[in-house]
Amino acid sequence: MQKILSLSNSYRNFLDSLENKKPLFMLAGSYTKTAEIDGITVAGLPGKIYLTPPLDMEVLYYGKPKTNLDIPKMPEGPPSPVLITSVVKKLIDFPLQFLDLGLRVKPKCPYVSIDTKESDSILEGANVDAEYLFEEGLKYSEHISPLNDTIVISECVPAGTTTAYAVTKALGYQSDNCFSSSHFDSSTYNLKESIVNQALEKNLKNVKSPFDAIHYFGDNMQAFTTGFVKGLSKRNKVILAGGTQMAAVLAILNKIDNNINFDNIGLMTTKWILNDAYGNIAAILKQIQSDINVFFSNFSLEKSKFRNLQLYEAGYVKEGTGCGAAICFAYLNGISEAKIIDEIDNLYSLINS
Amino acid sequence: MQKILSLSNSYRNFLDSLENKKPLFMLAGSYTKTAEIDGITVAGLPGKIYLTPPLDMEVLYYGKPKTNLDIPKMPEGPPSPVLITSVVKKLIDFPLQFLDLGLRVKPKCPYVSIDTKESDSILEGANVDAEYLFEEGLKYSEHISPLNDTIVISECVPAGTTTAYAVTKALGYQSDNCFSSSHFDSSTYNLKESIVNQALEKNLKNVKSPFDAIHYFGDNMQAFTTGFVKGLSKRNKVILAGGTQMAAVLAILNKIDNNINFDNIGLMTTKWILNDAYGNIAAILKQIQSDINVFFSNFSLEKSKFRNLQLYEAGYVKEGTGCGAAICFAYLNGISEAKIIDEIDNLYSLINS
Repeated sequence: MQKILSLSNSYRNFLDSLENKKPLFMLAGSYTKTAEIDGITVAGLPGKIYLTPPLDMEVLYYGKPKTNLDIPKMPEGPPSPVLITSVVKKLIDFPLQFLDLGLRVKPKCPYVSIDTKESDSILEGANVDAEYLFEEGLKYSEHISPLNDTIVISECVPAGTTTAYAVTKALGYQSDNCFSSSHFDSSTYNLKESIVNQALEKNLKNVKSPFDAIHYFGDNMQAFTTGFVKGLSKRNKVILAGGTQMAAVLAILNKIDNNINFDNIGLMTTKWILNDAYGNIAAILKQIQSDINVFFSNFSLEKSKFRNLQLYEAGYVKEGTGCGAAICFAYLNGISEAKIIDEIDNLYSLINS
Repeated sequence: MQKILSLSNSYRNFLDSLENKKPLFMLAGSYTKTAEIDGITVAGLPGKIYLTPPLDMEVLYYGKPKTNLDIPKMPEGPPSPVLITSVVKKLIDFPLQFLDLGLRVKPKCPYVSIDTKESDSILEGANVDAEYLFEEGLKYSEHISPLNDTIVISECVPAGTTTAYAVTKALGYQSDNCFSSSHFDSSTYNLKESIVNQALEKNLKNVKSPFDAIHYFGDNMQAFTTGFVKGLSKRNKVILAGGTQMAAVLAILNKIDNNINFDNIGLMTTKWILNDAYGNIAAILKQIQSDINVFFSNFSLEKSKFRNLQLYEAGYVKEGTGCGAAICFAYLNGISEAKIIDEIDNLYSLINS
């Protein structure tokens, strides 16, 4: 079995350079009021979607939540993929850093605060301070760059596939039918498309630059991460850990700076994203001018002891907290799929006991 | 000229191991209402002493303050030693990280938030959540340890020499006449002694452990830093950057864990602290059971073009934001005293223009 899948064999050099690396693993959380549009996201506890980023961070840091007794989960039962990332963190012991890019509720674990506030719904013009956050990301990269040759940046932004869809469409990408969501099936895809089109109708006329597109249709994570990745890519290997939201970050960065060198940049996600019938990450990536180093963890929870974890294989959970990249790094450090599943089962039963 | 002074030649091995190192330079800020006791501290803008930590952090990060137009300074005019640390940061380009351990006003630059609140005046029992913060420091060290083999931890705690005096005295150290302050002369030493004695009279009877001593008489920086240094000292070289406040951290740590191994721990400060007629850092250190690697930057601002900087030599400023350690690392990276003075003069005229 090939443990890490890629779209082209030419990407193997990039992957080989990561063998046995223990990256600095960062998780960027932000909040957009877009998440409050009825039916747009189910990635968390009902009525408390704003708790998903801080709870995920607490589970990663302490091994259990502190803000709340429960962990984020899907309405049907499958728990947050933070379980996967937590287990890999324990197995290969990489350092963590959390970024607060405007969370509504802050985690009760150490996090880096970036001076900003939650953003508005894209139906209200979002109001992301895009250029400021891009510059802050660029500047912050100078302080992170010397700490590790390999930096992973993952995200936790409820409704972030909607902002990703909206910004990329505003920038001229063919984005329709590319962005799936936390929903199990496509039942709400029409809602997402309709929200994005309403937002574009209202404000597309005001967009004169990529920063304007983020300002009206995006989120804080996109604005900061584009600058941060641009800065890091000069000296570090930088891995965007996530699915279509992170593909959108690269698509946006490509419009902000069309001389960006993608050689040091990779994207790592799950096989669940690759196989998602309601999204199309390859279609987004191939519209970016350069080839992107993209990798998918070949990992299945079919053999888990728990039905809620087996449901991942049915498409109930596809990504989150960089779980795809975490599995890739576990494999790159010689950890087996069986060992990861075993530890996930242990953690899941511990959290539910 | 010997650029870095030490109390014993046996410490040179430790110093040699730091040659050409670019450490991760951390600045821990906290706020104790002890700073509001009339006359206890002058380290900042009058009536706005609580702004000193965030302003110092902003100057270090951006090269100028953002929260306020002015930078912290002494009533007589000499500016905050953050100018020195900033210049060295620029010259040898080390990464920064700021810790918010309960600041009243947060900086407008990225900082790591630790879940806690400002502490009370020692006249009101301080109420530092000491054991919790110690454990958080210990845990956080696991995430910092892999990032750099050399970690510098400096502090910015207004009235921190008063809490240092109080805790060490509560723990049985001979602390009288050891802790100077931000004041130019000894005029307020009697006030400090009287405040410490009032606090001890009220709560010394409740002290059953070193954590109790921090709880009633200390500050958040001490509680967190003792745990953090203990954790780091297992795998890293860790440098406490500061004068008598940091000597107190080591004295407290020595009571919390009397098996602590000081081989990987150093203290770096200024010649201004060594020569301070109103404090006695050597007297504190020699009461700790192990030998401490302690170093003093041999640096003078006598040749600065500005009178407010020349006043450092008269004892108006002695330490702050780890400026002594910063100069030591500049020397260890081959930077000359003349170059440092020149850059400080440039930055001072830029900030005042």
